[in-house]
Amino acid sequence: MLTAHTIKVLQSLDKKKFRQKYNLFLVEGNKIISELPNSNFKIKEIFSTNPQNLDFKDTLIHQITENELKKISFLQNPKDSVAVCEIKESFKLKDYSTQLVLDGIQDPGNLGTIIRLADWFGIEQIICSEDTVDFYNPKVIQATMGSFTRVKMIYCNLVDYLSETDNVNIGTDMDGENIYTFQRPEKLNLILGNEGNGMREETEKLLQNKISIPRFGKSQSTESLNVSMAAGIILGQLFSSKE
Amino acid sequence: MLTAHTIKVLQSLDKKKFRQKYNLFLVEGNKIISELPNSNFKIKEIFSTNPQNLDFKDTLIHQITENELKKISFLQNPKDSVAVCEIKESFKLKDYSTQLVLDGIQDPGNLGTIIRLADWFGIEQIICSEDTVDFYNPKVIQATMGSFTRVKMIYCNLVDYLSETDNVNIGTDMDGENIYTFQRPEKLNLILGNEGNGMREETEKLLQNKISIPRFGKSQSTESLNVSMAAGIILGQLFSSKE
Repeated sequence: MLTAHTIKVLQSLDKKKFRQKYNLFLVEGNKIISELPNSNFKIKEIFSTNPQNLDFKDTLIHQITENELKKISFLQNPKDSVAVCEIKESFKLKDYSTQLVLDGIQDPGNLGTIIRLADWFGIEQIICSEDTVDFYNPKVIQATMGSFTRVKMIYCNLVDYLSETDNVNIGTDMDGENIYTFQRPEKLNLILGNEGNGMREETEKLLQNKISIPRFGKSQSTESLNVSMAAGIILGQLFSSKE
Repeated sequence: MLTAHTIKVLQSLDKKKFRQKYNLFLVEGNKIISELPNSNFKIKEIFSTNPQNLDFKDTLIHQITENELKKISFLQNPKDSVAVCEIKESFKLKDYSTQLVLDGIQDPGNLGTIIRLADWFGIEQIICSEDTVDFYNPKVIQATMGSFTRVKMIYCNLVDYLSETDNVNIGTDMDGENIYTFQRPEKLNLILGNEGNGMREETEKLLQNKISIPRFGKSQSTESLNVSMAAGIILGQLFSSKE
């Protein structure tokens, strides 16, 4: 049985303010939840319509009804379970040889897709401007398909960070060097800007290299690629020399 | 003024059955609508809250209110205008040197993203199995960001088509050849399968080459990439030799 108070608290976790107040976030669906024990995330409790499908030791699991699940799920089509997890303390910033840096990404779906890409390419850390959409947003967590358990996320002042890092800062620019001829540096940050406005001017000033994806279609009306798709194509190319 | 009948007809265009009955589909937003005159699509009429922003000769434009727009728009946040367009007759199938072939793609957002990718890479034609989501679905049209005006879409029996084409049929497979070493044939079809189930067995039998995107992340739990993201990374690689 879910109390009215529990429902109210869980529903409020849609908002960053309340995630921070309670230090909690939600993960939905047995498939993703089952990856939590292999991560550093701590599960506080699980609400499930099918507890027998969950193989967790020392974890508090409450059986709930389909109707109760609907009340606490943020999904249009709620899955079987909702895990309430504790927000982790931030990591200490330490550079890895290939990193993504996000300057004001706003769309939760894009952030989730980018985290999933990072996981695919074995990128261990993503550094975000303070105004990038919150990693613990339920839409971000679900869009990562579990990859959020394997990629470290750091929010910080980008100008300070990019001024001090030893990695080569690389960004996209229509007049940048063709990705097919670009020689990748050993240690790099690939910087991705906001969906509508691109990266901030002060971020752009700290780039050492500008690259571009050539467009083969002839129409000038063709929209530039979505930021997560551009990231995928660039990473595909940057990693070609790693093979 | 919008009549109740017009509202009913336009609202019904959400469904394929009614798009076929009336031979009509909707395009929303002045930015995309303004690309229609450069295409073969014929506009029947436009409903707009801001007709003065539209520079169309010989096109019937009705001024409507914001409230009326809300009634006919399929968008969560309706834009300025809705164009009612005529569905084109199907093209005669004629092979191009680089094509995409879709075997049962179901998600309108994925189809829209794939059409946008095709436009970016200058791919002129996409061939779809008959059960692929309908191209004129309003969510597909909007997700293409106008690219639907520049890419020919053909729905047909894939087994018949793939058996007869002179292009080399290429599909993805976990055990396929690494895309970074794969030598692209001059004339090719890149075949993309359904989001959950991949391509049908009878389609897979008609492949001449299988390719794969190497995963650099070490975790075995990492989900395979979304079909449109995989398409983007593969196309990025297939076109690297075109530079």
